[in-house]
Amino acid sequence: MTDYRRLRVALLGAGAVGSQVASLLLRHGDELADRAGARLELVGIAVRDVDAPRDVELPRELYTTDAETLITGADIVIELMGGIEPARSHILLGLGSGADVVTANKALLATHGPEIYEAADRVGASVYYEAAAAGAIPIIRPLRDSLAGDRVVRIMGIVNGTTNYILDRMDTEGADFADVLADAQRLGYAEADPTADVEGYDAAQKAAILASLAFHTTVPLESVHCEGITTITASMIEEARDAGFVIKLLAVCERLDGDGTESISVRVYPALVPRSHPLAAVHGANNAVFVEAEAAGSLMFYGAGAGGVQTASAVLGDVVSAARRHIAGGTGVGESTRANLPIVSIGHVMTRYQITLEVPDEPGVLATIAGLLSDGHVSVATLVQTMVLAEDGSEGTSARLIIGTHRATDSALRDAVERLADSDVVERVVSVLRVEGE
Amino acid sequence: MTDYRRLRVALLGAGAVGSQVASLLLRHGDELADRAGARLELVGIAVRDVDAPRDVELPRELYTTDAETLITGADIVIELMGGIEPARSHILLGLGSGADVVTANKALLATHGPEIYEAADRVGASVYYEAAAAGAIPIIRPLRDSLAGDRVVRIMGIVNGTTNYILDRMDTEGADFADVLADAQRLGYAEADPTADVEGYDAAQKAAILASLAFHTTVPLESVHCEGITTITASMIEEARDAGFVIKLLAVCERLDGDGTESISVRVYPALVPRSHPLAAVHGANNAVFVEAEAAGSLMFYGAGAGGVQTASAVLGDVVSAARRHIAGGTGVGESTRANLPIVSIGHVMTRYQITLEVPDEPGVLATIAGLLSDGHVSVATLVQTMVLAEDGSEGTSARLIIGTHRATDSALRDAVERLADSDVVERVVSVLRVEGE
Ligand SMILES: NC(=O)c1ccc[n+]([C@@H]2O[C@H](COP(=O)([O-])OP(=O)(O)OC[C@H]3O[C@@H](n4cnc5c(N)ncnc54)[C@H](OP(=O)(O)O)[C@@H]3O)[C@@H](O)[C@H]2O)c1
Ligand SMILES: NC(=O)c1ccc[n+]([C@@H]2O[C@H](COP(=O)([O-])OP(=O)(O)OC[C@H]3O[C@@H](n4cnc5c(N)ncnc54)[C@H](OP(=O)(O)O)[C@@H]3O)[C@@H](O)[C@H]2O)c1
Repeated sequence: MTDYRRLRVALLGAGAVGSQVASLLLRHGDELADRAGARLELVGIAVRDVDAPRDVELPRELYTTDAETLITGADIVIELMGGIEPARSHILLGLGSGADVVTANKALLATHGPEIYEAADRVGASVYYEAAAAGAIPIIRPLRDSLAGDRVVRIMGIVNGTTNYILDRMDTEGADFADVLADAQRLGYAEADPTADVEGYDAAQKAAILASLAFHTTVPLESVHCEGITTITASMIEEARDAGFVIKLLAVCERLDGDGTESISVRVYPALVPRSHPLAAVHGANNAVFVEAEAAGSLMFYGAGAGGVQTASAVLGDVVSAARRHIAGGTGVGESTRANLPIVSIGHVMTRYQITLEVPDEPGVLATIAGLLSDGHVSVATLVQTMVLAEDGSEGTSARLIIGTHRATDSALRDAVERLADSDVVERVVSVLRVEGE
Repeated sequence: MTDYRRLRVALLGAGAVGSQVASLLLRHGDELADRAGARLELVGIAVRDVDAPRDVELPRELYTTDAETLITGADIVIELMGGIEPARSHILLGLGSGADVVTANKALLATHGPEIYEAADRVGASVYYEAAAAGAIPIIRPLRDSLAGDRVVRIMGIVNGTTNYILDRMDTEGADFADVLADAQRLGYAEADPTADVEGYDAAQKAAILASLAFHTTVPLESVHCEGITTITASMIEEARDAGFVIKLLAVCERLDGDGTESISVRVYPALVPRSHPLAAVHGANNAVFVEAEAAGSLMFYGAGAGGVQTASAVLGDVVSAARRHIAGGTGVGESTRANLPIVSIGHVMTRYQITLEVPDEPGVLATIAGLLSDGHVSVATLVQTMVLAEDGSEGTSARLIIGTHRATDSALRDAVERLADSDVVERVVSVLRVEGE
């Protein structure tokens, strides 16, 4: 066996991900040493409660509540506690004492990323976070390294497993949001408090991380427009299917090129995706990130976006990278945010829309509606009118209009829809959905 | 503008890929400098004929036929000539004179990879080859870095665009191989001499590269079992569809775990893939690599496997990585082939098979066939019998049997099929196909 140099690895957190990381580090020590060119010695695991019962059996003497001492003696610090504090301070302490840092903490990076990257830059250390954007799916290295010579034009990601699971089941079963959510909670696919997932906050954090990397721009979480899936109904999904679409919660990061001045837009919302698009085939709790680049064309990365052991795989890949860097010497490669493109607000973003209205089945209605839209600079591309049956199944007096628009800005669309809602010829605005991936 | 250090970049070859690399290097100089932390100065382009007419317009003074002088003055050498010599000597010269090397040369790496990696190791330089395995699709970094802490169990790749294009069109149009091939040649999807593609040689080179990396083992090209798609007929594809499969040319790299001693198998052949498998949805000339890892689970990487500008994206990503390494200092990370697992021959590989036979429509035939198979240690999992109509459309005297087997070794299967072919109760062995991805 090769006599490798030893690197001291400090693990912060032994939860869903951390316990799996520890277990893999201990079980696959020899193989990891061959990969890393160094023996990765797990010197301690910081937790809140040393005596807490744990699913994964690990040597008791590794646990400690004294994270600081653990960190200052380490070559590599793996932060898997989650949350902002003390994770942030621990990471800064690690960088300050010469360690490379591996983290999966999307909440922290989406809010305090720049502070952490700068701290690493100052000391020539590296921060690795492959697991923070799409769990086990390698997306950070492709964006940071493989596409470094290309220009990313657009990213469309299904980056939240819970919401994809819910929408997929609504799609296959025709079930309603609340019912599927309840079942997903029972089965462990959704948390007791599902807010972060179903409101899109988790996806927004990941979108901020992906966009920062893809566009070399600091993207504050507040600049990410965010809508969740709580308003999606079974009938919206059914109508989408009839029109050849599936509804997915998408994180969209887009480069906009208006009159030679570039800007970017980062947003999370449920959108209509054509059934023929590769993203439409992403089922269950799986994630996928679809990337369009100027030279490379369309790429897609698919896999498990979460799960303790799956995420641990990505974390360990980072640990091996950190170890190789320690062995090779040299300084770390800092985050490159030199482009720092302006971020436009959602109002300026242009997409196609699908607007569903209930209107009286009378002559002249169509003309009035088309007029209202075009006054608001929204032009109609497709139009389908169907009969709305009365309660007793007889022919009703209302019609349902499904309007596909040409590309329009979000603010123009919003104004136009408001005007429609106020108009005498519209009984009800049933839904307004953006179309992506056409 | 930041005042970056300059790195001298030598480009060998200005063909489909090289010309695009040169053009991007020149057009995106500022952005690339920001990404790389160094100004990438294209100091020359080695070609055979300086005066040849070229599709992409580049400064004439960059061309040279003196590759050696160009190489010895460079910090980064990009080899895009293809073929074994002089590509091999040029790369060794570059490494010997302190340059990092970027190449897309699958033929060279599949045959002389170890020599080149060792030469790089000796001087602490790096060889980058993201474009050699799947064109624009980032697969080398995910395997080398992201999955470095995990254990790859299986790779199934659609890594040849030409054959996927042909099979896909045969599938959608019900057309025959020869007709689609001719049309593909006319459209530029297949070369005038299509041998390397349709016989699976190109895919075998890529399989050798992927398996070397995934299993940390030197995989000589001769150890890759290789079958092409020239024997695939329209009716085989139709029968596959009826049974819920699509036929894809797959590069399969597999870790085998027999009685505690590990080995690997690397093979290329057309196989039946369930229509529900993500690989079944890879259409046209696109490529995809499906990776199963112990911790990460199933991952898929999808995109353009070839094309000048697409491939140039992957090459430039490597150039930026090489530049960053130069700037950061330290030694390169060598190929890790420390596992060096034994490679088993195709005879020992186990898969499921689908055997299609024409047999007389008589009592007792089924029992005889089942007996012949089980004598040969191949057991029947599923069986479908259909009538074969006579020429005039009347009921014939033959039946068609489609037998799905349980997993069996390739040698057992081959023996059993030979016995079937020799038997009185079999009129014709219509096809034998392996099943992957179930
Ligand atoms: N779970 C996933 O599938 C997944 C996927 C991608 C990314 N991530 C990210 O990975 C990170 C970890 O997630 P997780 O699911 O493993 O979390 P978790 O199960 O909640 O585990 C958190 C661990 O950190 C420890 N901890 C928390 N606060 C601490 C403190 N103040 N001092 C010391 N120890 C503390 C806890 O100690 P005790 O055990 O003593 O309570 C626990 O062991 C998060 O940033 C998450 O966003 C998770
Ligand atoms: N094309 C793709 O889509 C693709 C995708 C993935 C990987 N690759 C790989 O990328 C490499 C380049 O492919 P390509 O399609 O760009 O090849 P190509 O179009 O045939 O171009 C080859 C270039 O190399 C030059 N060259 C060849 N032999 C030379 C010699 N002895 N001395 C000096 N120059 C020489 C040629 O010079 P002249 O122009 O003067 O003849 C030409 O410019 C190959 O290894 C290939 O396998 C290609």
